[in-house]
Amino acid sequence: MSLIVQKFGGSSVSDAEGIKRVARRIIDTKAAGNDVVVVVSAMGDTTDELLDLAAQLTDDAPAREMDMLLSAGERISMALLAMAIDGLGEKAVSFTGSQAGMITDAIHGKARIIDVSPQRVRRAIDRGYVAIVAGFQGMNKESNDVTTMGRGGSDTTAVALAAALGADSCEIYTDVDGVYTADPRVVASAQKIDKISSEEMLELAASGAKILHLRCVEYARRFGVPLHVRSSFSTNEGTWVLPSPDDQIKIQEGEPLEQPIISGVAHDRSEAKVTVIGVPDIPGKAAQIFGVIAGAHANIDMIVQNVSTAASGKTDISFTLPIVEGKDALEALRAAQAEIGFEGIEYDDEIGKLSLIGAGMRSNPGVSFTFFEALHKAGVNVDMISTSEIRISVVTHADKLNDAVRAVHAAFDLDGEAEATVYGGTGR
Amino acid sequence: MSLIVQKFGGSSVSDAEGIKRVARRIIDTKAAGNDVVVVVSAMGDTTDELLDLAAQLTDDAPAREMDMLLSAGERISMALLAMAIDGLGEKAVSFTGSQAGMITDAIHGKARIIDVSPQRVRRAIDRGYVAIVAGFQGMNKESNDVTTMGRGGSDTTAVALAAALGADSCEIYTDVDGVYTADPRVVASAQKIDKISSEEMLELAASGAKILHLRCVEYARRFGVPLHVRSSFSTNEGTWVLPSPDDQIKIQEGEPLEQPIISGVAHDRSEAKVTVIGVPDIPGKAAQIFGVIAGAHANIDMIVQNVSTAASGKTDISFTLPIVEGKDALEALRAAQAEIGFEGIEYDDEIGKLSLIGAGMRSNPGVSFTFFEALHKAGVNVDMISTSEIRISVVTHADKLNDAVRAVHAAFDLDGEAEATVYGGTGR
Repeated sequence: MSLIVQKFGGSSVSDAEGIKRVARRIIDTKAAGNDVVVVVSAMGDTTDELLDLAAQLTDDAPAREMDMLLSAGERISMALLAMAIDGLGEKAVSFTGSQAGMITDAIHGKARIIDVSPQRVRRAIDRGYVAIVAGFQGMNKESNDVTTMGRGGSDTTAVALAAALGADSCEIYTDVDGVYTADPRVVASAQKIDKISSEEMLELAASGAKILHLRCVEYARRFGVPLHVRSSFSTNEGTWVLPSPDDQIKIQEGEPLEQPIISGVAHDRSEAKVTVIGVPDIPGKAAQIFGVIAGAHANIDMIVQNVSTAASGKTDISFTLPIVEGKDALEALRAAQAEIGFEGIEYDDEIGKLSLIGAGMRSNPGVSFTFFEALHKAGVNVDMISTSEIRISVVTHADKLNDAVRAVHAAFDLDGEAEATVYGGTGR
Repeated sequence: MSLIVQKFGGSSVSDAEGIKRVARRIIDTKAAGNDVVVVVSAMGDTTDELLDLAAQLTDDAPAREMDMLLSAGERISMALLAMAIDGLGEKAVSFTGSQAGMITDAIHGKARIIDVSPQRVRRAIDRGYVAIVAGFQGMNKESNDVTTMGRGGSDTTAVALAAALGADSCEIYTDVDGVYTADPRVVASAQKIDKISSEEMLELAASGAKILHLRCVEYARRFGVPLHVRSSFSTNEGTWVLPSPDDQIKIQEGEPLEQPIISGVAHDRSEAKVTVIGVPDIPGKAAQIFGVIAGAHANIDMIVQNVSTAASGKTDISFTLPIVEGKDALEALRAAQAEIGFEGIEYDDEIGKLSLIGAGMRSNPGVSFTFFEALHKAGVNVDMISTSEIRISVVTHADKLNDAVRAVHAAFDLDGEAEATVYGGTGR
């Protein structure tokens, strides 16, 4: 008997019909001989409605109260889901984050899991129940206060539970069939990836692929949890995200381990580029600039420092960061301009980032050539470049991003014959 | 410094405006030099909406899951209220039933409080915070499961907290000015009662006055908590419900303790009358009948057994019970007809019950005369009668009930000159 953790997002349980569909899905999994633990998010728009109510009352809600408020959403969806399963004749019991033993630190709104003690969940499945657990929430053991984990929190709950329970796999249900070689809304011929390493999935997620949250993949990789990203609207196999080659062999049972050179192309429109002009080219200035940015709680992604000309003794430093963090970062930089001694700042949020990801590029020296040639032929100018062992990322003008994605996707023979299947919903 | 527990119902916090109004009220109480603990119900229609969702999923939801579902409502309202108070510049912190130490038995949906350990609430008020506590919910300590207390649960939470914290008073906010000598919707000249004993309030609540739930008054009486029933729409003093003459003296500071003979007139349209015809007049038959009714979980109120005629050896037994429990009771009786040996059953849900309540009637022998004379003059036929030391109740035809209430109210000089003030809302 296998133990499977299944995670359903808010769009899967947005109304009674959705909840019933999810309930049937869970019962089918149980009927196939598995123990099932389910992690569920708040119903559809619940979180937005609660945030809207809070905004009518105060501009600056205490973080503890905000977590108390938002955590109500999962209590509703998990209790309803347990009722629906019970109504269909299978036993189910729901648990809050606290009851499920999700112990977090005290950072309300962005809590991190520090321990998982799912004894009640374990007892419930041992007694033949489906255990339903509230995603996104935990408890700060010091204060016994409810915490929430921020974006991607329900996925992380699912993976953390799967790790703590020693589950055989963690299924993340979504409204697409799995992870694609590119965003199917941009590349119609994008193909579903059958299996991918955690390492590559991490790079995809960090590069703008929204299907899985970075934190969830990190957690799955660290604790060796095989993830299965699949559609809640079909029973097709989705994409397996596998923490190590051993797991790939275990899961795929003897199937030869063929690793394609390239896994996929990700893109991201959520970043802006900041260029600090005329920075004195003396040691410590870059550190000073990034210290200011860190002080404004902005997360820098790519960095390029121009070669300084000996004549001026000045250089320019460019970096990218999330657009939503741009305002605070610029204010902080301007406040420090005199102290640091740079000449000016340029800000551009009309940029796009394209990333090519593949574990196989480690041992394939021709990848960079093919990549840049494809961009060149498509008439795409490259503004910034960064690389890792299994990723090349470039920044282009936002207008050119879709062309660039399609050109690179085609150049690496990722195009499939069939159009990608995308079910209703707005993407996650 | 006084400690005041304030309870606000769902209609007081049905939207952001209502929540802000309640927040200002709380802050005013704190600014007047009091420590304040607030008990709040779920917002407006939240509970009905959740029940409706549950009904779409199953006809027979597990009681534990129903409690998990419904308890989410208070988490939302209490967190929003804490935010609103914070937004207005006062410190506030919200607590679930479990966090506030409301320990109950395991009867989901109708849990009874078995212990209150409000250490966190105490610490919060000692640190200068307004403590907001979820009404209606508690925790079963054995299983660590969330329980709810059923109808009137938030009032009971407030009184139980007031008792455990040794509060000086417990204010129950509602949409009328207080307890009236009769329902102002029936008797326009009904007067607000300034103070009433717990004993009389118990009889009023048991006799159909809906302003306070029986359980809450019982609890307040047992633990000596002075209740203050007042309007959330005005700052007028409402009705003090006082557990003992000592408290009356304490609260009213030296004011002479004049107890009116009659406190008020209550009426109730929620009961039906069952008559079991032709019951063999031998010992044990009545017990058999009421055993069957108890087995169907129906609550009998009034009972009349006719004098049997020696000729037939048969008698009739009539009793009243809540209309909602009538169907189950009738089915149980019919199933037992052969065994008990009665001839038939009559059922009448077109009845009304009128009750006259007053601690002073103990020592005023003329009360019964005045009461029945008033009914007679108003042309009201009396069908059943029951009495206690401080109450006379009669059952009449439903059509005659309003006339009867007005006649009795007038006969005991309860009519005031001004019309009663009833603020918006549909009553609680």
